Amino acid sequence: MMATDPHPDSALYQLAYSAGDALKSRGWYCATAESCTGGGIASAITSIAGSSAWFACGWVTYSNISKEQLLGVSADALEKQGAVSEAVVRQMAEGAQKKSGVDITVAVSGVAGPDGGTAEKPVGMVCIAWTTRTQTESTTFMFDGNRADVRLQTIEAALNGLIRLCCVS
Amino acid sequence: MMATDPHPDSALYQLAYSAGDALKSRGWYCATAESCTGGGIASAITSIAGSSAWFACGWVTYSNISKEQLLGVSADALEKQGAVSEAVVRQMAEGAQKKSGVDITVAVSGVAGPDGGTAEKPVGMVCIAWTTRTQTESTTFMFDGNRADVRLQTIEAALNGLIRLCCVS
Repeated sequence: MMATDPHPDSALYQLAYSAGDALKSRGWYCATAESCTGGGIASAITSIAGSSAWFACGWVTYSNISKEQLLGVSADALEKQGAVSEAVVRQMAEGAQKKSGVDITVAVSGVAGPDGGTAEKPVGMVCIAWTTRTQTESTTFMFDGNRADVRLQTIEAALNGLIRLCCVS
Repeated sequence: MMATDPHPDSALYQLAYSAGDALKSRGWYCATAESCTGGGIASAITSIAGSSAWFACGWVTYSNISKEQLLGVSADALEKQGAVSEAVVRQMAEGAQKKSGVDITVAVSGVAGPDGGTAEKPVGMVCIAWTTRTQTESTTFMFDGNRADVRLQTIEAALNGLIRLCCVS
């Protein structure tokens, strides 16, 4: 049987396990707000047994209207900056934090491809934001590969950021 | 690179593709409300390029409080029937339909294991509900295997139900 969950020997499983460990050590709960990964970050986190001790909830806001209605992203940011922008993922992360009340959230929006890329925002461009109770950070990545590759690298970067913020903030 | 997205040759990819095809043929948008799969249904649906034409949004309501706060599941149902019950997944599916306004939703809650099983609700027990604009259906499954197996079979059953309802309702 082909499993979508990462195999315990895989790098992704180890990363999801480490993220859970970091959150648990800190006594923190996390939430996710995903566009291009479509639930893949939450799925990776919850592939670890016992993850209800550090994962509360997540949103998959794939359409623009759901980013507005479920997470309170402003129509202005969506129109002027576009769905794939640090302005929008910061609002997604902060909206998820506000609505869930958790300690840390991560939000992603990107161009997974194969279609949808432009000169300014090519396939592989992904914006990620992390919000804790005291700060919001965001970064723009340019990932290589096909749709599955871009989505996987986004999940990995999202988890790495969670681990880092658990350790440094 | 180990991909979480199903390989185009896999049964899951074909199933997600068929679900997209069924929704698109019907002109329907779908939304997801997931507990035990933790975003895996939304992730499978959005692994198909172009899925923004049939997938709107999803919720990962892992904690009981998020089931109440994000989807409007009643505290009464959670307390009396338990999170893993047809009563709760029906409320999750109907709540997701109400909040998103889409044509069809699917909701799942189950005991993925390895812990959390009881005599009455063993590991592998999963409740799934589907809501269209005219009806809600629900079923309880007993799946075999480990945590990843239970989650995968839940994703497959959820997608199969979406396909069926696109065709018959």
